[in-house]
Amino acid sequence: MRVAGKPHRTIWPAADGWAVEVIDQTRLPHQFEPVRLETLGDAASAIRDMVVRGAPLIGATAAYGMALALRHDPTDRSLDTAARTLVATRPTAVNLGRAVRTMLDHLRPLSPTTRAGAAYARAAAFCEEDVASNRSLGEHGLGILKGLAARKAGGPVNVLTHCNAGWLATVDWGTATAPVYLAHREGVPVHVWVTETRPRNQGALTAWELGEEGVPHTFAVDNVAGHLMQRGAVDLVLVGTDRTIPCGDVCNKIGTYLVAAAARDCGVPFYAAVPGTSIDWDTDDASGIPIEERDPREVTHVAGRDGSSRTIAVRVPPEGTTVANYGFDVTPARLVTGLITERGVCAASREGLLGLYPERR
Amino acid sequence: MRVAGKPHRTIWPAADGWAVEVIDQTRLPHQFEPVRLETLGDAASAIRDMVVRGAPLIGATAAYGMALALRHDPTDRSLDTAARTLVATRPTAVNLGRAVRTMLDHLRPLSPTTRAGAAYARAAAFCEEDVASNRSLGEHGLGILKGLAARKAGGPVNVLTHCNAGWLATVDWGTATAPVYLAHREGVPVHVWVTETRPRNQGALTAWELGEEGVPHTFAVDNVAGHLMQRGAVDLVLVGTDRTIPCGDVCNKIGTYLVAAAARDCGVPFYAAVPGTSIDWDTDDASGIPIEERDPREVTHVAGRDGSSRTIAVRVPPEGTTVANYGFDVTPARLVTGLITERGVCAASREGLLGLYPERR
Repeated sequence: MRVAGKPHRTIWPAADGWAVEVIDQTRLPHQFEPVRLETLGDAASAIRDMVVRGAPLIGATAAYGMALALRHDPTDRSLDTAARTLVATRPTAVNLGRAVRTMLDHLRPLSPTTRAGAAYARAAAFCEEDVASNRSLGEHGLGILKGLAARKAGGPVNVLTHCNAGWLATVDWGTATAPVYLAHREGVPVHVWVTETRPRNQGALTAWELGEEGVPHTFAVDNVAGHLMQRGAVDLVLVGTDRTIPCGDVCNKIGTYLVAAAARDCGVPFYAAVPGTSIDWDTDDASGIPIEERDPREVTHVAGRDGSSRTIAVRVPPEGTTVANYGFDVTPARLVTGLITERGVCAASREGLLGLYPERR
Repeated sequence: MRVAGKPHRTIWPAADGWAVEVIDQTRLPHQFEPVRLETLGDAASAIRDMVVRGAPLIGATAAYGMALALRHDPTDRSLDTAARTLVATRPTAVNLGRAVRTMLDHLRPLSPTTRAGAAYARAAAFCEEDVASNRSLGEHGLGILKGLAARKAGGPVNVLTHCNAGWLATVDWGTATAPVYLAHREGVPVHVWVTETRPRNQGALTAWELGEEGVPHTFAVDNVAGHLMQRGAVDLVLVGTDRTIPCGDVCNKIGTYLVAAAARDCGVPFYAAVPGTSIDWDTDDASGIPIEERDPREVTHVAGRDGSSRTIAVRVPPEGTTVANYGFDVTPARLVTGLITERGVCAASREGLLGLYPERR
């Protein structure tokens, strides 16, 4: 997608051909600043500290993290350490573990001398696969948006999205945003309600990237979602996922379930954009999904730009307050209208998903 | 309730016998600072700028605002100007209009010379009525908490509340918090999940007052409410109201409806604490309730304490982002388990309310 009018990705090989560059997302939306990753440690910190975030981009960064580790030391031991280190950074998104396993399976049979080169090539391919998958997912979602546009007397299709499942969360296009970007480019009128997404305010990232692409949007606090749907101001909810399980339960950013429950109550369709890489075929019990609990400081302190354009954090609740900080929740399949994947749209059910991924039968 | 161990109210006559003092709630939870109101203008600004907030406390402040106006000028014209000025400050809470009407009805028949004294006396009585009503509401709610405690094998009764319907929102006791404070004082184990309540973060006020009273509580972002209920961590939801209509629909702080929809989905009881003064008997159509839209800056800028203990505001979304800021939403009666009033607990329905307020038949 575009930044200041020029096409950009979220992760790319540096000009020197061996380091990797990413956008420091902790500085967005106020500052656009690429940072250079040179070591396994750099890649792991970038994921843990959310310099990069979003399930697909975490996967891509982990793939390059393996390459950076092997460039330094291509032994089996280094390979295993890299895999362990990267997988431990964030527990909920399934893409991370899958990317690391893909790399391991690809690299372990190779001789150490060829591993680093193969790792860079596989990581680059991994990124291309993500872009192609999101683009394809976008085409399938576009059909839904066009259907809604055709049924409206006039005015834009109003999409509500939560968190950032945008191009910043992937290598390009985004997942939930891919249909929106395609619609906008094709001239289908679309407007996006962007929820702030406390505690980390990823809605500000969504507002930033929609703004850079020129897509009309309105930013609001998370609490507003139900009221908007009650008033008929939302035609569909469209969110991403960090892990979807075969029964159709969708694990996504904390607060998604609240939106889904209200969407059902209001009769608003609720879709999740689910790239195949985010489906965890190994479990079918939502209680088995580890829900990340993060630093209470993310809740107590809000980062933003002060009057002198410095980015600082201010404390909201009283000193000493006990805080809970769950990163994700699970929306049960019964509240999900459909799943949009790179292979098509299906019901949020085992049969629906197996229809699109028959190799998993 | 207590501040630093000493009993305190939110509004009281100043030592000089004519000015009125309130706690500046825009400075809480970081700074406890009384401010003096000397004129009608002071009272109106205090309400509009949310120096005082919460439907019952707004009513009490308006009552004293009438007294301040009449002390300066006791004519009919002054009376009418005061009423108009105060009613225009905030549109959603019904208590404000009711307080002003009560004062008008009481004062208009009196001769100008006796009006100011009568106004102070009526405002003081208004405050005492609020305290007594909340205490009584608390006793009725306490029965519900005791019932839940009796059914639990052990551990505290977990209450989730949204916004601040605490003593800071009233003259004393609070509405949603009154049962909690009584339970805590009687030794019924209780723990409160406090939602942040974006955009103005009134959850920080709730955390502050619960902390001052020693009630165990945990602060979390609004998005967490559904996840907590899914995991069985909430025994009941208990919120306040700015306006409840006879059919049982409850208008309260934005985001309440999201909690209610998820509570229904999880089978968690959802109660609203509804003092009789917040019932609007004049309408039975939720679409007739004016939903306040406030300054976008409340959304874009978050106020808190910086590293040098100054309270400042930081900007979260990108410059120029379009923002929506609705202050309230309406939870339909069908999602409300019951209404707790100063006269008892009833179903969220016309019949339920008329059973407790038969004079409205």
